[in-house]
Amino acid sequence: MLPEKITSLQNPRIKQLVKLRERRARDEAGLFLIEGYREVRRALEKKIRIGELYFSPEWFLGENEPALIEQARQAGAQLYELSKEAFAKCAYRDRPDGLLAVAPQWKLGLDEVALGAVPFVLVVESIEKPGNLGTILRSADAAGVDAVVVCDAVTDVFNPNVVRSSTGVLFSVPMVLADSATVLAWLREKGLRVVATTPDTPVAYTQADLRGPLAIVMGSEQFGLSDFWLGASDTRVRIPMAGQADSLNVAMATLITLFEAVRQRSG
Amino acid sequence: MLPEKITSLQNPRIKQLVKLRERRARDEAGLFLIEGYREVRRALEKKIRIGELYFSPEWFLGENEPALIEQARQAGAQLYELSKEAFAKCAYRDRPDGLLAVAPQWKLGLDEVALGAVPFVLVVESIEKPGNLGTILRSADAAGVDAVVVCDAVTDVFNPNVVRSSTGVLFSVPMVLADSATVLAWLREKGLRVVATTPDTPVAYTQADLRGPLAIVMGSEQFGLSDFWLGASDTRVRIPMAGQADSLNVAMATLITLFEAVRQRSG
Repeated sequence: MLPEKITSLQNPRIKQLVKLRERRARDEAGLFLIEGYREVRRALEKKIRIGELYFSPEWFLGENEPALIEQARQAGAQLYELSKEAFAKCAYRDRPDGLLAVAPQWKLGLDEVALGAVPFVLVVESIEKPGNLGTILRSADAAGVDAVVVCDAVTDVFNPNVVRSSTGVLFSVPMVLADSATVLAWLREKGLRVVATTPDTPVAYTQADLRGPLAIVMGSEQFGLSDFWLGASDTRVRIPMAGQADSLNVAMATLITLFEAVRQRSG
Repeated sequence: MLPEKITSLQNPRIKQLVKLRERRARDEAGLFLIEGYREVRRALEKKIRIGELYFSPEWFLGENEPALIEQARQAGAQLYELSKEAFAKCAYRDRPDGLLAVAPQWKLGLDEVALGAVPFVLVVESIEKPGNLGTILRSADAAGVDAVVVCDAVTDVFNPNVVRSSTGVLFSVPMVLADSATVLAWLREKGLRVVATTPDTPVAYTQADLRGPLAIVMGSEQFGLSDFWLGASDTRVRIPMAGQADSLNVAMATLITLFEAVRQRSG
């Protein structure tokens, strides 16, 4: 059976795809968008259950798209072919490549996190920019943390820019959304030491002991860590830096701290 | 004297501003664009000689723009007021804030680099993405290197996206453009050890000695380091990582390696 072909810009499916760019529509529907060849491929690799796959051959950049579409179909996705104009209306990116999927959001609970023998968790508080959250997820993946816990989320973790900037890590790294008080209680119960990063301490991140059961806590771009987390921390560390004050953003600071922990823990 | 006001979209100055988005026009004119309040302010702080400042009050986001414009005038900039439409045509950004400057490019030679008592240099080869180069400049600034040497540049370092993503570090960090052979000869003459990063070595970056006179060399996004630099290196190191293979991009790998060097050198 050939997939349904949509050419009308008034088609309700087109309208829904455009709406899903907005957080409220995503939250209400419990769905999110996965745009682009690389991202759809990664989602399928990670067994994300794609409900609908929209494609538009006139936008394809390569030759492997039909195989990927067939793979999605076999995994249970409904297929819809869009005209060039219809796809242009739905595409979120500046340079669309003719593939756009819709998948259900998921929710992982703290009690579902599989902690390693020596637990290693990243906690981020109220990150604002989707691009930073995506980069942080990549860093956490590369560092091999057990989970990323997003406290008091400001950015929707299913924002299309998180999907994109995480290069698909969103589909694989265990990520939990929770409020700070619940997270702290969980960390205490599991016996993790809480290390908070802040400019307001003389202790360099390289001087602190980052071995053993560990949670590294990073604050938001604009406000840094809240008093709650600064007060709850067992250790506060800073990253000494030369140059202009804002050269390191929160994503860069997270990467540096995570890899210092990896260094110490593998030594 | 009030600044000239430009409303016609056909004005030659408008046309030149649009042209300066293109590398060839920048190279020919020896000029580049600095767009945005923060960037213009940083340029003035760093004594960049702004030749022309274009402003459009209807786009202003804050209240400090007139003071900044006056500061630019006193530093020698010619002022031009643009109508809202004229500014929209020139603006490079999605969300213009009514300020766009034109400044002369500069060129620093290897012989002008002021090496520290224990030299510390970052060499990058053929970086392709302006955003990565900007982030690398920020990392180098935060790590306090003596210079960033860009070998066989693919990206124009005066690309508007480098200006933006470097958050103005472009205006302050010593940066040299040169071909690889010249750079290697210079490093040898100055007695710097060459440490190359590559996935194809068993040596972790944390196991290598990164103290003493040091050049860290990073390859391009797509191809990594060339055989030239791999062959020229005294030490090759890798960054061990968990997770998916491409979680760390070249900008992230540079940041991790630079800060491990800083850690060792300050110990």
